[in-house]
Amino acid sequence: MKKKNFSFELITQDDKARLGLINTSRGQIDTPSFMPVGTQGTVKGIYPEDILKTGTQIILGNTYHLLLRPGIEIIQKFNGLHKFMNWNKPILTDSGGYQIMSLSNLNKIDKNIGAIFKSHIDGKKIILSPEKSIQVQKAIDSDIIMVLDECPKLTNDKKILSNSIDVSTFWAKRSKVEFGKDNSKALFGIVQGGLYKDLRKESIDKLLEIGFDGYAMGGLAVGESQTEMFEILENSTDHLPKEKPRYLMGVGTPADILGAVSQGIDMFDCVLPTRSGRTGLAYTWEGKLNIKNSKYQNDQSPLDKTCHIRNLHKYSKSYLNHLIKSNEMMASMIISLNNIYFYQQFMSEIRKNIKSGNFSYFYKKYINYFN
Amino acid sequence: MKKKNFSFELITQDDKARLGLINTSRGQIDTPSFMPVGTQGTVKGIYPEDILKTGTQIILGNTYHLLLRPGIEIIQKFNGLHKFMNWNKPILTDSGGYQIMSLSNLNKIDKNIGAIFKSHIDGKKIILSPEKSIQVQKAIDSDIIMVLDECPKLTNDKKILSNSIDVSTFWAKRSKVEFGKDNSKALFGIVQGGLYKDLRKESIDKLLEIGFDGYAMGGLAVGESQTEMFEILENSTDHLPKEKPRYLMGVGTPADILGAVSQGIDMFDCVLPTRSGRTGLAYTWEGKLNIKNSKYQNDQSPLDKTCHIRNLHKYSKSYLNHLIKSNEMMASMIISLNNIYFYQQFMSEIRKNIKSGNFSYFYKKYINYFN
Repeated sequence: MKKKNFSFELITQDDKARLGLINTSRGQIDTPSFMPVGTQGTVKGIYPEDILKTGTQIILGNTYHLLLRPGIEIIQKFNGLHKFMNWNKPILTDSGGYQIMSLSNLNKIDKNIGAIFKSHIDGKKIILSPEKSIQVQKAIDSDIIMVLDECPKLTNDKKILSNSIDVSTFWAKRSKVEFGKDNSKALFGIVQGGLYKDLRKESIDKLLEIGFDGYAMGGLAVGESQTEMFEILENSTDHLPKEKPRYLMGVGTPADILGAVSQGIDMFDCVLPTRSGRTGLAYTWEGKLNIKNSKYQNDQSPLDKTCHIRNLHKYSKSYLNHLIKSNEMMASMIISLNNIYFYQQFMSEIRKNIKSGNFSYFYKKYINYFN
Repeated sequence: MKKKNFSFELITQDDKARLGLINTSRGQIDTPSFMPVGTQGTVKGIYPEDILKTGTQIILGNTYHLLLRPGIEIIQKFNGLHKFMNWNKPILTDSGGYQIMSLSNLNKIDKNIGAIFKSHIDGKKIILSPEKSIQVQKAIDSDIIMVLDECPKLTNDKKILSNSIDVSTFWAKRSKVEFGKDNSKALFGIVQGGLYKDLRKESIDKLLEIGFDGYAMGGLAVGESQTEMFEILENSTDHLPKEKPRYLMGVGTPADILGAVSQGIDMFDCVLPTRSGRTGLAYTWEGKLNIKNSKYQNDQSPLDKTCHIRNLHKYSKSYLNHLIKSNEMMASMIISLNNIYFYQQFMSEIRKNIKSGNFSYFYKKYINYFN
């Protein structure tokens, strides 16, 4: 059977907010879309079939982590990550760039070679070239592949940022060559340039010259303020082509997502719902609740009475408060699942409100709701 | 609606091994039966609906832990533990005696008052009298209630053991009075006497005089050898009434269970399947497997291809090996669930083999299989 081609359709806009549809060979993705993060081949504490029930249509896998452990040879034995972890819907993989900067013992960035670093697990020296990153992501059988980029830490130093655009553009070209022609997959470029609008535009122009199936905003959510992030997005999305999906990497809170959607972003990923879940923070339509708080000790209401996945509507805040205090895994399991469910409900409401032309009302109602 | 009375029916025997049926107001229990342990109101890492799918008909709750946290007032708001944790099948609760000895900072045992101890959580002084233990277990709405016993550590000192029988018998009488008449629940007595057959007989005789709905063997699985335990069981079960269920507390490995069933024991509970699960030890029909072992790194076979609960048949040993090494919660979740499923399959095979008169063959085949 011929695999369905990757494609993106912009259905409608409400001001700058966009409603769209991505087609992949493993299923469609309604945008704006939120991708739960499955760093090491599992979305922490949630069975894949439950992820699916939350309305999730695509998850993210981390090339850096999977390359180090279990290693690509093992994932290849399963013909990719989907079968290895039992998730048969689309997967987007990052390129490894971000984790090399943040986690590994980085030796150096060599524009001609790639990133040279030591594994944070066993100290083993590894070289990740742009070509290698694409090969690894293809071995994972990822549906949306990211180019390897040089992702600097938050800085105002224009020289560092310019250099990162220079390196990232060169690597993006090489990634495109290595990716070759595979209509069943997508290759996304990554925009750098820090908080400078002129540098962002320069990066975008250079990526557009190469041509990608989608464009990601990199180097954001690295410590800048929300206002700074929104400003860069406002400016950058004006330069991005309407007919391609736009992905804001590593973002974020519900408010971050609302603000980014209002600037025309289509895709998001973040560890927040699962990481919060493990510390007892629940995202609900009542707001962000710290279930560890003793005021929930006697609260017999559930986090969300509409969530029937794994009977979550039957678990009271009182019970969850008890489980957290008792360090029980079940607390992480239930609250993480609740949070992913909430995020997907939230995205679904965003899409409905764009469709009906009411996004600005929805934005105003919730932009400060989860503080 | 009138609640169904607690009852026990001995269906057949194969030598000393017994096939039976317990009726409770919340459902029936085929014996020999294994009870997964839900110490703090959750069987660690397994959703209640999945526990049910393993074939589990009853779980155990720990009075000591629940009394300390969340406290009985909270559980009473839910009319008991069943609704609090979302498990509507039978629950047996222990009396708290064992944990007071092993976990708390015990101040003293006062025959007339009860156990006086400090909570291992906050150091708060607590008195647990036999009456209080029954009241707490009734507040939990437990289906099978245990008397408070004085459970000494492993010792050969006959004076200590005799004294423990003296205290435990007195407390058993007071427990019976406090329990009163409630046909929908059962009250079990607990046999003490260490590794002395004469003391065990003395304890049994005294409990029989009081009269209980079932009899538990206490003070075993506390460090003695398996041979010593089997010898005590062999002798003790001869003195126990045929028409009442017999429960070996805190046991055990599949081999422990086989040996005890062959001596006429009907009920078991143990943390082993879930605790092992959390350290990567899987019980399977191939034997006990240490999935952390690198030999499983490339093993694409599942732990049990017949286990369709949560699609467990789709997870390879290779994937589980990766999850364990990566400290992922999902490893504990999958292997714990597998282990409870295995234990219940094992109990089901035991029952089938007693029914068909082939228990001795089954015993011989598996008594050394899981070493």
